Amino acid sequence: MKAEIITIGDEILIGQIIDTNSAWIADRFNLNGIEIYQITSVHDEHSHILEAIEKAAKKVDLVVITGGLGPTKDDITKSTLCEYFDTKLVFNDSVYNHIKSRFTKLNIDLNKLNRDQALVPESCTVLFNKTGTAPGMWFEKDDTIFVSVPGVPFEMKYLVEHELLPKLLKNEKTDVIYHKTVLTQGIPESMLAVKIEDWENALPENIKLAYLPSPMSVRLRLSATGTKESQLIDLVDEQIQKLQQIIPESIFGYNKETLAEVIGELLKSESKTLAVAESCSGGYISHLITSVPGSSEFFNGSVTAYSNQIKEGVLGVDGNIISEFGAVSKQVAKEMALGVKRNLNSDYAVSTTGIAGPTGGSNEKPVGTVWIGIAGKNEVFAKKFVFGNNRERNIIRSSQTALQILRQVILKELEE
Amino acid sequence: MKAEIITIGDEILIGQIIDTNSAWIADRFNLNGIEIYQITSVHDEHSHILEAIEKAAKKVDLVVITGGLGPTKDDITKSTLCEYFDTKLVFNDSVYNHIKSRFTKLNIDLNKLNRDQALVPESCTVLFNKTGTAPGMWFEKDDTIFVSVPGVPFEMKYLVEHELLPKLLKNEKTDVIYHKTVLTQGIPESMLAVKIEDWENALPENIKLAYLPSPMSVRLRLSATGTKESQLIDLVDEQIQKLQQIIPESIFGYNKETLAEVIGELLKSESKTLAVAESCSGGYISHLITSVPGSSEFFNGSVTAYSNQIKEGVLGVDGNIISEFGAVSKQVAKEMALGVKRNLNSDYAVSTTGIAGPTGGSNEKPVGTVWIGIAGKNEVFAKKFVFGNNRERNIIRSSQTALQILRQVILKELEE
Repeated sequence: MKAEIITIGDEILIGQIIDTNSAWIADRFNLNGIEIYQITSVHDEHSHILEAIEKAAKKVDLVVITGGLGPTKDDITKSTLCEYFDTKLVFNDSVYNHIKSRFTKLNIDLNKLNRDQALVPESCTVLFNKTGTAPGMWFEKDDTIFVSVPGVPFEMKYLVEHELLPKLLKNEKTDVIYHKTVLTQGIPESMLAVKIEDWENALPENIKLAYLPSPMSVRLRLSATGTKESQLIDLVDEQIQKLQQIIPESIFGYNKETLAEVIGELLKSESKTLAVAESCSGGYISHLITSVPGSSEFFNGSVTAYSNQIKEGVLGVDGNIISEFGAVSKQVAKEMALGVKRNLNSDYAVSTTGIAGPTGGSNEKPVGTVWIGIAGKNEVFAKKFVFGNNRERNIIRSSQTALQILRQVILKELEE
Repeated sequence: MKAEIITIGDEILIGQIIDTNSAWIADRFNLNGIEIYQITSVHDEHSHILEAIEKAAKKVDLVVITGGLGPTKDDITKSTLCEYFDTKLVFNDSVYNHIKSRFTKLNIDLNKLNRDQALVPESCTVLFNKTGTAPGMWFEKDDTIFVSVPGVPFEMKYLVEHELLPKLLKNEKTDVIYHKTVLTQGIPESMLAVKIEDWENALPENIKLAYLPSPMSVRLRLSATGTKESQLIDLVDEQIQKLQQIIPESIFGYNKETLAEVIGELLKSESKTLAVAESCSGGYISHLITSVPGSSEFFNGSVTAYSNQIKEGVLGVDGNIISEFGAVSKQVAKEMALGVKRNLNSDYAVSTTGIAGPTGGSNEKPVGTVWIGIAGKNEVFAKKFVFGNNRERNIIRSSQTALQILRQVILKELEE
């Protein structure tokens, strides 16, 4: 089955919001063997929406329309759908009762806009929205299915997960697609491509390889197509085993595993714990780690020490060291890691101290200078990096780099 | 000038990455009076790319193509462009020398893939990419401009900012569009719509209003079109003043200001400082605050106290209180805020303790239960919230709610 996603909303086209809905839907569809042919973002405008729907209908079996619904937005989308499906708006009692009960719970009176949300095109099947007031709508025309869902992410997600996908997959027989992504770090894309060229050329016909570079790593996605998933899994794993022999040190995980998840698994397997001391990364390392479900099993906590006073008072860094070498220094990075390891009673600790920018740099220590400190079982050290001028990017890069170094140290010490 | 963005990449259509490039370009274009008509994401596939370019060329004056370039991806995009513009690939010496010098600096030998990046369609003008090896390309055909840039975000940003926009705007006279977004919180979208209905209906013809709801707030975007920006600014500000009289308490900022920025400005204006103690929000509040440039002026630091031991040892929470009431309790939230305020020597402190999920809930304290504590000049209190089942969302909502409450307390105390 081939699908197109149409997102409606001026806010996307003026760059006020990022269209995260499409990526989420694409991921869910992909996992269920539905191919996304195209994603199209259009204005809240009658003729533009109509044109996008007409074009999509010629290409795909399923058109998913997100956005353009909600108490203050309904008019254009619903009237456009009525025109395209040659139908009219009718009042839907069960939608109305649902809206009413939501408002009653909140002790709020319904106004006209709320009541109008119960108006739906006569020819559609309502997809009941338990998470909000705008219903989803399912239409069929000339062998194509059209589904309209609100743009509020958690309402959209609910409707896709609990209404759309079950209804779609009930009678569906599709080719199985199996993806597995190998996460690598430490080799630039072009060098990696040469290194694994022979392996790539020898891949079976039904496996496609894609390079997905990002600032800190290159991901290699293998996509296999066939009829039986278990066979595809074996086929892909066989190829990955061959790859592991070519670049054994560079592979740090698979699929959507994050470095934090990989580190968490390592630590849990040895019942070890972690603490973090952050200056320039400002809490982001802690956030990456605590985003992992169950991280409380291996993560004791972190200290964001923005002021030198906190570096001294809470982490126990010697004030003389700060005066002598400066807060952004090898010595302070090491002391921070040691201090947080000791005070948070942990087996491993990682620290950052640097100049995230945009101001605060000097000739000697320009914006982007970052020291990353590690305190492990046996070793304590710090490494210097000079990233760029962008604050946001410097925060992300120092955090990711800190986790990379930490992983290597843990791996090494666990082997000893 | 009207533009379409075409993003090339299977990784977008299977939901492996979120297309943040389009939002960034849309924002920059919008600020420069270039309207984005549509955003289209297509596969790394010859006929699909060609079709998208052909369709776009019929609708807009400028087609921006991102992605599909890079050492391992060049082939399809470049050959498609050659076909569309009826030209061939030629070797570009200055691009080659640039690539070579980048590799020499890194002490790496060039391989064939790297050398091939110096092949560019003969009829294009090269946009020089100082940040990477894939050059940008500028084409013109039948009064339409076509620009192809790599998909790596910081390379794309460099080329758009330093090459594309200056070249585009040199001879351009466009209508001015001025946007200002009012950030509100505390009133649901449908109620807000009714409350400000008369104001909305009385807006001048050349001002368009858009509601941009998100889980924690509703943003109201006013877009004014005209010939002189200064006039538009006055016109919009006049309308916003009227709006302020209708919903004075709900407006917390403008445009892309974040709650953390607004709080930072408040604190700096009174030379006050802030500290944070996080349990369930796991460092995310600290990250939101330290993402603000200059936050070291008002932010002392934070403690992520994932284990009770840290709550006691580093924050000084009484162990008996934790045993008696549990870590997720009003008492512990208050003690955490007080403790971090004292130990980090700050004027204000905010704390979170809760169950982010997916596990760890009980009948009495289900997943999503969060206590937010505040310690200000005069008052110490904690408030309970019950969010949902989603860990990521619970982290975000507890962080945003904590900042909202903090802002209200600071505002109130500053008035006293």
